[in-house]
Amino acid sequence: MNRRRRIYEGKAKVLYEGPEPGTLIQHFKDDATAFNAKKHEVIDGKGVLNNRISEYLFQNLNDIGVPTHFIRRLNMREQLIREVEIIPLEVVVRNVAAGSIATRLGLEEGTQLPRSIIEFYYKNDGLNDPMVSEEHITAFGWASPPEIDDIMALAIRVNDFLTGLFLGVGIRLVDFKIECGRLWENDLMRIVLADEISPDNCRLWDIKSNDKLDKDRFRRDMGGLVEAYTEVARRLGILNETENVVTKGPTLVQ
Amino acid sequence: MNRRRRIYEGKAKVLYEGPEPGTLIQHFKDDATAFNAKKHEVIDGKGVLNNRISEYLFQNLNDIGVPTHFIRRLNMREQLIREVEIIPLEVVVRNVAAGSIATRLGLEEGTQLPRSIIEFYYKNDGLNDPMVSEEHITAFGWASPPEIDDIMALAIRVNDFLTGLFLGVGIRLVDFKIECGRLWENDLMRIVLADEISPDNCRLWDIKSNDKLDKDRFRRDMGGLVEAYTEVARRLGILNETENVVTKGPTLVQ
Repeated sequence: MNRRRRIYEGKAKVLYEGPEPGTLIQHFKDDATAFNAKKHEVIDGKGVLNNRISEYLFQNLNDIGVPTHFIRRLNMREQLIREVEIIPLEVVVRNVAAGSIATRLGLEEGTQLPRSIIEFYYKNDGLNDPMVSEEHITAFGWASPPEIDDIMALAIRVNDFLTGLFLGVGIRLVDFKIECGRLWENDLMRIVLADEISPDNCRLWDIKSNDKLDKDRFRRDMGGLVEAYTEVARRLGILNETENVVTKGPTLVQ
Repeated sequence: MNRRRRIYEGKAKVLYEGPEPGTLIQHFKDDATAFNAKKHEVIDGKGVLNNRISEYLFQNLNDIGVPTHFIRRLNMREQLIREVEIIPLEVVVRNVAAGSIATRLGLEEGTQLPRSIIEFYYKNDGLNDPMVSEEHITAFGWASPPEIDDIMALAIRVNDFLTGLFLGVGIRLVDFKIECGRLWENDLMRIVLADEISPDNCRLWDIKSNDKLDKDRFRRDMGGLVEAYTEVARRLGILNETENVVTKGPTLVQ
């Protein structure tokens, strides 16, 4: 495995060359970072949980016809994906005010937004991922107007599905971040969901207690990150409930 | 004049009740502020110059069919305007990178943008006028999608006209800020240009020397603000060239 060519290393994942042309292997690390990597920690078991949760969500999105880069999970930390050209935008969908929108627009955290709001951030660590609008995106050629339309339609479908899924297991989907890529097949290009969806890039609040089951536990030094991610996996039915992941590592339902 | 009812006092202007229903008097003060009024100074003659420059620009915009709130200038510091419902957005049109966009997107000041870019900022001093996108504007009901279309079309027309006008007098229109309002006439509502256009809310660079002829002279402690604004008025042909405004105050061509 060590001889594989590494294509890209990010903060929480590594991409390796895949077994066939047009494929990659996405490897989930245990690294947790926040505030543009100013805060960093290694949290045992996080990568395994995120690989499994993201597999579950992407597989189900594929099944309802939302195009994604996901092919299949390979092992505890890795999944096979299609190689896409990543669009340099972080696409954030917000249902409830939390985090930066609460600060910027003076809203109390937990306020239901009048409707779901899609935000774009330019993926650039050196600039701290600044928020941008369609005007900047099209002027600088990061995506074309029809691509933005596709991205927004895809983001809304993902939000609809995830809101329903999490509601069904007693979790409020406050917001989440996705990335999209261009996938070419037979000279046709389409926009597909890429990257991952996991508690690393969602805000997930328990509906009854408002307990945070996401990376805010790390950002805000609340502790219990792996326990929270494990709880999300357990509710989604993809974790053997009798296992204690913190001491033994998660046992995943195959 | 002192008995007039004051409707609103802003950082650089005061609005008084007008002589007829549906009109207001817009009074230009000499106050200069920057960085959300953290920096403040009174600069003799600025209000007179801005009243005259804004009159000239709004009258010419009216003449080419861009709807504005402007009716006529009343005296050295005041103009008669139509009362409109101000849309709580600062609409910024940028042709060249300068100020916040240079910092946020890592562009060198003075770089020509790939195309003109329109930005929206939510008018809220308490929040430091945060940048917002169409998503925020429509979700919070600050303007409707057709209103945003009207605002953008209007902003482009203003940019086209001002770019040409300033080019003709040897000035590069780097960027500017406008505000828009809703004007009702015979049960019909339309979006019109409101507020003012002056060197207080434009970046104007001399084409040959790149000298700044705008409020950046105040923001950046460069001095010579009234001299710069006077030069703009002189080039626009609305100032008697033989007068020295700094010592005597501007003499305006009637």
